[in-house]
Amino acid sequence: MKITLQQLAKKINAKIKGDPECEINGIATLQSAKSNELSFLDNPQYKKYLSDTKAAAVILTEEDVDDCPVNALIVNEPYFAYSVLAKEFVKNVEYSAGIHPSAIIGNACHIHPTVAIAANVVIGDRVTIGENTVIAEGCVLEEDCIIGKDCFLWPKVSVYYDVQIGDRVVIHSGTVLGSDGFGFAQHEGRWHKLPQLGTVIIEEDVQIGANTTIDRGALDNTVIHAGVKLGDQIQIAHNVHIGENTIVVGCVGIAGSTHIGKNCQIGGAAGIGGHLTITDNVLIGAMAMITKSISEPGAYSSGTGFMKNHDWQKNVVRFRQLDKLLRRLQKLEEKIVKE
Amino acid sequence: MKITLQQLAKKINAKIKGDPECEINGIATLQSAKSNELSFLDNPQYKKYLSDTKAAAVILTEEDVDDCPVNALIVNEPYFAYSVLAKEFVKNVEYSAGIHPSAIIGNACHIHPTVAIAANVVIGDRVTIGENTVIAEGCVLEEDCIIGKDCFLWPKVSVYYDVQIGDRVVIHSGTVLGSDGFGFAQHEGRWHKLPQLGTVIIEEDVQIGANTTIDRGALDNTVIHAGVKLGDQIQIAHNVHIGENTIVVGCVGIAGSTHIGKNCQIGGAAGIGGHLTITDNVLIGAMAMITKSISEPGAYSSGTGFMKNHDWQKNVVRFRQLDKLLRRLQKLEEKIVKE
Amino acid sequence: MKITLQQLAKKINAKIKGDPECEINGIATLQSAKSNELSFLDNPQYKKYLSDTKAAAVILTEEDVDDCPVNALIVNEPYFAYSVLAKEFVKNVEYSAGIHPSAIIGNACHIHPTVAIAANVVIGDRVTIGENTVIAEGCVLEEDCIIGKDCFLWPKVSVYYDVQIGDRVVIHSGTVLGSDGFGFAQHEGRWHKLPQLGTVIIEEDVQIGANTTIDRGALDNTVIHAGVKLGDQIQIAHNVHIGENTIVVGCVGIAGSTHIGKNCQIGGAAGIGGHLTITDNVLIGAMAMITKSISEPGAYSSGTGFMKNHDWQKNVVRFRQLDKLLRRLQKLEEKIVKE
Repeated sequence: MKITLQQLAKKINAKIKGDPECEINGIATLQSAKSNELSFLDNPQYKKYLSDTKAAAVILTEEDVDDCPVNALIVNEPYFAYSVLAKEFVKNVEYSAGIHPSAIIGNACHIHPTVAIAANVVIGDRVTIGENTVIAEGCVLEEDCIIGKDCFLWPKVSVYYDVQIGDRVVIHSGTVLGSDGFGFAQHEGRWHKLPQLGTVIIEEDVQIGANTTIDRGALDNTVIHAGVKLGDQIQIAHNVHIGENTIVVGCVGIAGSTHIGKNCQIGGAAGIGGHLTITDNVLIGAMAMITKSISEPGAYSSGTGFMKNHDWQKNVVRFRQLDKLLRRLQKLEEKIVKE
Repeated sequence: MKITLQQLAKKINAKIKGDPECEINGIATLQSAKSNELSFLDNPQYKKYLSDTKAAAVILTEEDVDDCPVNALIVNEPYFAYSVLAKEFVKNVEYSAGIHPSAIIGNACHIHPTVAIAANVVIGDRVTIGENTVIAEGCVLEEDCIIGKDCFLWPKVSVYYDVQIGDRVVIHSGTVLGSDGFGFAQHEGRWHKLPQLGTVIIEEDVQIGANTTIDRGALDNTVIHAGVKLGDQIQIAHNVHIGENTIVVGCVGIAGSTHIGKNCQIGGAAGIGGHLTITDNVLIGAMAMITKSISEPGAYSSGTGFMKNHDWQKNVVRFRQLDKLLRRLQKLEEKIVKE
Repeated sequence: MKITLQQLAKKINAKIKGDPECEINGIATLQSAKSNELSFLDNPQYKKYLSDTKAAAVILTEEDVDDCPVNALIVNEPYFAYSVLAKEFVKNVEYSAGIHPSAIIGNACHIHPTVAIAANVVIGDRVTIGENTVIAEGCVLEEDCIIGKDCFLWPKVSVYYDVQIGDRVVIHSGTVLGSDGFGFAQHEGRWHKLPQLGTVIIEEDVQIGANTTIDRGALDNTVIHAGVKLGDQIQIAHNVHIGENTIVVGCVGIAGSTHIGKNCQIGGAAGIGGHLTITDNVLIGAMAMITKSISEPGAYSSGTGFMKNHDWQKNVVRFRQLDKLLRRLQKLEEKIVKE
């Protein structure tokens, strides 16, 4: 795969400095790029690598162009431009339209002829799948699911009955959509299952990582709104709503009936309690424990910071005495004021 | 599906206020119920929605009946009664008895003729499966497993060799039972695997969520006792025992050889260290880190609470100085006492 | 399976005390071993069980031999010796060489004739698999993967295209290797996917637990070096490197581009931020939150310790006031010094 700098520049509307006929056959970091590869400079902490780069050309802003020893593609947003051009060099795993002979398809399905259904897929009755969607090896779609167009389900995704998935949704391997919410009523000392009557709705342009789980709603639905991006190993409980363009990093857990706003960023392994409302434009730090609703946009965190065990153990003991420590301080203050 | 209020009342032993012939065809929240749907009032914080509900009838206690603008089913435990009646309206995904032609079954298995084995299931040699159990699409049961009656294994559950599962156990998609415990002996600077000779025993009436993992025991077994309910994405290490009716919310991790008592509630994403004993009737808060055994029933938590980043960063710095801070306070106290 | 004490002693180079012809048919703990089973004593806290053991023989050090009421195998490292002898008693799940008729194999693959490929496996084009490797039921290996010799992939492992796996690697059920890294560029208020052009490289002698996820690199590769042991439910993000012989316990999350050294031990459910460097020989405590690089070997932790809810709630309030508390202390100190 070879493409000239000029052809690449056109795709991102870039100004060229240097040789427009220069041929590019890959993309790499400033440090590792070879003489026929493209690179980019966005994060200023990598600027130190610019002067020594062996890249054929670098995507950068006007501001950095004079320091660039090689050809340059000049744009306003180098990171976004890189995301566009990297598509030229990604390996396309090909799935051709049609149903693999080992796949098992239910009755009364509506599967567009452009859909690719790979080996060992199982599809229940009355499932609908839109054009150009790929269902990779070993996926199971239970009855009455609806999958939009231009979706890509990687191997071994499980989609329970009635789940609805919009257009251009990507779901990685091992992810489960529509498993039962975790609801039980206690009666005579034992737990009795609450049937989960809702479903899961995934709107358009959502990406979901590997081995993530999204439970179906108890009475209403669990809803992931348009443009949301979810990482790997995330757990989303019943009746949760996640607002448009919110991004959730891997290992996060969100408890039942919590509603998260638009354009939020939830850091890795954060935990969000049940029945909360998080407003739009909230940033939650990695591993933060969120136990109350948040009505004001901004960044929130929790935890102690890490330290050497020796110091940590001493401070943990003091944390247990914090309330007493404050009372001792108050006594001193009173004494001194009295004197 | 239509059913009269009288028929529903019979199933939960409820007193009817209003029209016993009223027809019900669904169940929903007080806010969203339509005029042919049933609703319920249990949590007092939802009482505010009672006066405006459009429901056909509401399950509630004697205490709330006078404030109910529509028909009512009067019981002592509305939440439990709702769990019973919701079963009338849940969609039954049908799996008919018999073995799908694509399933692959080992030698010398004992599979009751009422068992349903779905497409692409693989079952090893000498596996036993009790009556009315459903093994959904793509499950793998390795050799010598025993599965009880009335169980439901959702798609793509993995059950390793020798694992034993009791009656009425429900296991959601992607869950793995019987993978090797994480045990290694160090020798000459490298890690050497400890063979895991035990297995996993799941007693009756257990529910296990999606993508949960339960490792087999090293020498003895890992045991989940009767009536335990486990959420999604839980990790249970080798030789753990979980006592009857204990409930474990999603994303919890329990390290090796820890024994948890009966009727405990373990909050989401809590972590419980290895070789601990937790007594009966203990409540562990969400994301709590449990590093020592607990011999006294009660509620336990850890963590700092969350706050705005600006405040949090300052307090984290102070946490590192806590021990020093206490010593400064002691000095002051001594000084003042001396004076 | 029966074997004499003498035969076992040979395998671990042990001195025998007692009857070399004694027959052994299993291995168990000191407390539960029966009269034809072997046991071991390593951790001194179990020494109290030695005098009453019913075992046929006990693996122990010279130091404990006089207190042993039964036959003994005397070695320097009893725990390592136990790991060696336990292999004699582990159940070998047999997979015979050859390709199960239900497996689907791509074009131009290089699969050694000693390889066992089980039911419902799907293998893409141009995949290479080395001798004696087992690919268990329902695994999917996408195109251009390379798997070494003597590997064991348990049921339903997913290996994306181009992933490379060394010799003697064991991967447990539900694990996903090579899913897309979580990279997006923001542009006009929406998130745009960064194509993930790298792959995952797993070197020799690595073990990976169940339902773990390892994402492919964005430009360079994600690399797990030789001898690393990973538990269940771990998330390893794009471009992470983990050094030789490092051990990572279950539920850990490691964010993008972080490099971890050799011979580290990462405790369960710890979280390690992105773009960090952790040097060799670092121990991270369970559930620790690591937000900065670590350049000095040693043990590190974070968190508050757990306590009863009543006490915890009071101390959490004080944590929020820590910075103010320090300022009050400073004022007092100044006042007293002035006086």
